[in-house]
Amino acid sequence: MISNDTLQSRFNQLRTNKAFELFVVGIIIFSALVIGAKTYDIPPLISNAIVITDWFITIFFLVEITIRFLGEPRKRDFFKSGWNIFDTTIVVVSLIPIEDSELALVGRLVRVFRVLRMVSIIPELRTLLISLLKALPQLGYVALMMFIIFYIYAAIGSMFFASVNEELWGDIAISMLTLFRIMTFEDWTDVMYETMTDYPFSWVFYVTFIFLSAFAFLNMIIGIVVNVLDEQHRKERQEEGEPTLRELQNELRELKDLVRQSSRPRTPQE
Amino acid sequence: MISNDTLQSRFNQLRTNKAFELFVVGIIIFSALVIGAKTYDIPPLISNAIVITDWFITIFFLVEITIRFLGEPRKRDFFKSGWNIFDTTIVVVSLIPIEDSELALVGRLVRVFRVLRMVSIIPELRTLLISLLKALPQLGYVALMMFIIFYIYAAIGSMFFASVNEELWGDIAISMLTLFRIMTFEDWTDVMYETMTDYPFSWVFYVTFIFLSAFAFLNMIIGIVVNVLDEQHRKERQEEGEPTLRELQNELRELKDLVRQSSRPRTPQE
Amino acid sequence: MISNDTLQSRFNQLRTNKAFELFVVGIIIFSALVIGAKTYDIPPLISNAIVITDWFITIFFLVEITIRFLGEPRKRDFFKSGWNIFDTTIVVVSLIPIEDSELALVGRLVRVFRVLRMVSIIPELRTLLISLLKALPQLGYVALMMFIIFYIYAAIGSMFFASVNEELWGDIAISMLTLFRIMTFEDWTDVMYETMTDYPFSWVFYVTFIFLSAFAFLNMIIGIVVNVLDEQHRKERQEEGEPTLRELQNELRELKDLVRQSSRPRTPQE
Amino acid sequence: MISNDTLQSRFNQLRTNKAFELFVVGIIIFSALVIGAKTYDIPPLISNAIVITDWFITIFFLVEITIRFLGEPRKRDFFKSGWNIFDTTIVVVSLIPIEDSELALVGRLVRVFRVLRMVSIIPELRTLLISLLKALPQLGYVALMMFIIFYIYAAIGSMFFASVNEELWGDIAISMLTLFRIMTFEDWTDVMYETMTDYPFSWVFYVTFIFLSAFAFLNMIIGIVVNVLDEQHRKERQEEGEPTLRELQNELRELKDLVRQSSRPRTPQE
Repeated sequence: MISNDTLQSRFNQLRTNKAFELFVVGIIIFSALVIGAKTYDIPPLISNAIVITDWFITIFFLVEITIRFLGEPRKRDFFKSGWNIFDTTIVVVSLIPIEDSELALVGRLVRVFRVLRMVSIIPELRTLLISLLKALPQLGYVALMMFIIFYIYAAIGSMFFASVNEELWGDIAISMLTLFRIMTFEDWTDVMYETMTDYPFSWVFYVTFIFLSAFAFLNMIIGIVVNVLDEQHRKERQEEGEPTLRELQNELRELKDLVRQSSRPRTPQE
Repeated sequence: MISNDTLQSRFNQLRTNKAFELFVVGIIIFSALVIGAKTYDIPPLISNAIVITDWFITIFFLVEITIRFLGEPRKRDFFKSGWNIFDTTIVVVSLIPIEDSELALVGRLVRVFRVLRMVSIIPELRTLLISLLKALPQLGYVALMMFIIFYIYAAIGSMFFASVNEELWGDIAISMLTLFRIMTFEDWTDVMYETMTDYPFSWVFYVTFIFLSAFAFLNMIIGIVVNVLDEQHRKERQEEGEPTLRELQNELRELKDLVRQSSRPRTPQE
Repeated sequence: MISNDTLQSRFNQLRTNKAFELFVVGIIIFSALVIGAKTYDIPPLISNAIVITDWFITIFFLVEITIRFLGEPRKRDFFKSGWNIFDTTIVVVSLIPIEDSELALVGRLVRVFRVLRMVSIIPELRTLLISLLKALPQLGYVALMMFIIFYIYAAIGSMFFASVNEELWGDIAISMLTLFRIMTFEDWTDVMYETMTDYPFSWVFYVTFIFLSAFAFLNMIIGIVVNVLDEQHRKERQEEGEPTLRELQNELRELKDLVRQSSRPRTPQE
Repeated sequence: MISNDTLQSRFNQLRTNKAFELFVVGIIIFSALVIGAKTYDIPPLISNAIVITDWFITIFFLVEITIRFLGEPRKRDFFKSGWNIFDTTIVVVSLIPIEDSELALVGRLVRVFRVLRMVSIIPELRTLLISLLKALPQLGYVALMMFIIFYIYAAIGSMFFASVNEELWGDIAISMLTLFRIMTFEDWTDVMYETMTDYPFSWVFYVTFIFLSAFAFLNMIIGIVVNVLDEQHRKERQEEGEPTLRELQNELRELKDLVRQSSRPRTPQE
């Protein structure tokens, strides 16, 4: 029993060790380089070496995740963290042999996603991602508004322009893709000039769409900026320990009471 | 009489009911999906089903708007709200049979605009739209300035370049569209290189236009950002109940008077 | 003598009259519409009408500027205002007969610039333009930095790529235009892929240029935003009459002295 | 010994002289113009003149840097400044004869980089550059996150699309260049439509990439804006000598103690 506990605390020490973390980051970078190397035409010798390296990396990650699991004081808590679930899934799916023709694609994709383990291991990246994700729900209603704009324009677009260009306006899904393209200003005039031969006033469709989507997009950005500035502002004040104006006002009022009290006791004296 | 009043109060209860609101939103989303489905090639059986569904939706909206109207304590107030007028118009125009060949287009367009009822029903979207529209008038003069820039460049453009490319610079309206395209950086060099063969220095025209319009546009954006930040700031302070510096100053002055008073009465005593 | 003075004060009254201002703005808009109309193919009858209208507008502006001049209490001050000089120049050059084949172009251009008189007449636009121009000098050094980046890249570009594409990289001036195009992301990959056939590593040139120019441009924008926010902030505080923290501190110190004085005189008494 | 010291102090005076600085700036601008002139087709006479001018400039810079070095009170400190090392390197490498066919390219490039000496000489540009560079490290983790996004998408892209277009997705390096192009919205739909013929759902790849990279990029910008605003804010407060709220609170507390003390001594008296 004791030996088990000692083992666990040792693993726990290991997994919180800075050098161990750096070593894991090193292996992740190395695995990323291996993935990159595979995209080049490489002689069979190196190709074989890569296959072996790949197995080494897979096994290393398996050992590492096992250490993390065993190092967890309470085993249940391990799977309460989304990062641990993500890491375990990546590692387990990596065990699928890449030579298996049917699942080869899944195996190769999972090897690419191993790079994402960088985020789960480096705490600063984890914090950054969480703060990015936190900004999203606040954008909910602007995003919904934008979707409504897209949907209405896509419906009108495919209603009128499907006969002009089936590939751009064939159905509502492809129309939304075309509108996304227009929103990025990517060759939008080519799309416009094409429909203007049949509908000379179709420029109204494009110009209003660009205005509306740019306006909604701008609002999204401003929304994020305002939120970030706000949070920054609040955090700063807390860090500096700066009192709020409300606190200053309270102290002023206490002072007033003090002055009043210090002048009142004298009246009976007089 | 009483039965009438009871009916009205019941309808009023119904229209402010959260579940009813969600149900209406659901129907709107469903009607949007029907519109989307119509843009695909669909077998006649489903096509017929869609026509029937469409009638069901139209009737549902008619009933819903009637409930809203009957639920209004004072009938006159109903049409004081722009949203109600918008909703009623959409619903009434939807009654035009879509099979009518002449008005078919209107009928189909109105069905698309039914998606906009989302905005009139979800309060958060309504607030968002109103806050967006409120930002517009403040941009009035920058927009006017931008229009003047556009107009002058369009006049000069169509004066010089109409002979080079009739389709891009034929008249002042089409020139403004071309300038809008240049402002979005969409293949603007193609337009420039074309005129540079005849007018080697015409790049001055384009580069100055891009600078001026980008500068004016930037000012518009900054104007919005500053306004939004400002309003946010003001709202926050009110919510937190933070006192203003002015209020603090006033309390300080009261305090000074207090100190002065508390030290003065003692002098006759001496 | 007196009649002269009366005339002057009457003209002065006229030129500061709101209705007169609106009427002049109306004529300017009308003259803009005439300029726009001329860019369309128009039947000779209307064309003749336009020539006559044009003369009417020219004479109206001449009369208007004369009224402004005569209405000025001290004639010298009239030409101290840049706006007056601008207006007078536009009006005087407009007198050149447009039929004169040699100066026709100048005459037509000046008619276009008459639209700019909108800015000199509407006070809000004048204020806006001045505030825009004020923001420029603060950008001086960032603009110089950007010019240095452009110049160096243009020199390197024309040194290496002139042999690849004479039209894009022929000399340093045309190279700077090409770089401006790259900065707007306008078909920059076409330019890059062309040089990458000869210089496979030329993508470094483009990518670094985009990063540097985007970074410098971003700094320009941030510079403007910060300045605008700052000025807004200062103006607001002045308008609200909010005291500064420094002022609050001074009042606090005065208060301290008061308290000290009110407690000190009692000591001899004891 | 004394004569040496006198010489040194004279050189020191010279190099901090405003007129000398302006003269050096003038020579740098002149050398930039010479570089520009060389990119044009020029008659041999002027070409020869340019070669001579070039030697004159090189020697001038050599003399100038020598003066700076000799003017330095402690010779070691001279090479402690990065700017001095940069200047010396540029000047020394300029001595390589441009006619030398092998090193001609290096010689010509170094002549271009002489324009950068503007930054090392004008103090305002130096400050600007330093403040720009200071903003970079704060962006470290967002840049790393962006690199991870790029790497993963490039790996997936070259895995799937290499067979579609070898030139755009051949290996991971070229894929990253293609992704950078997509991020600038440069003809990204051409790339997408090409792969959509083989992989109809590949638009998901592009749209998600654009969203992720735009979101990460936005965060970078917001990060810079927030930092700049912050620093500006802090600097301003320091310049104005505005007290912090914390300082005001401390003064308030001192005041409270004063009031308490001034009311306490009286109690024995009573």
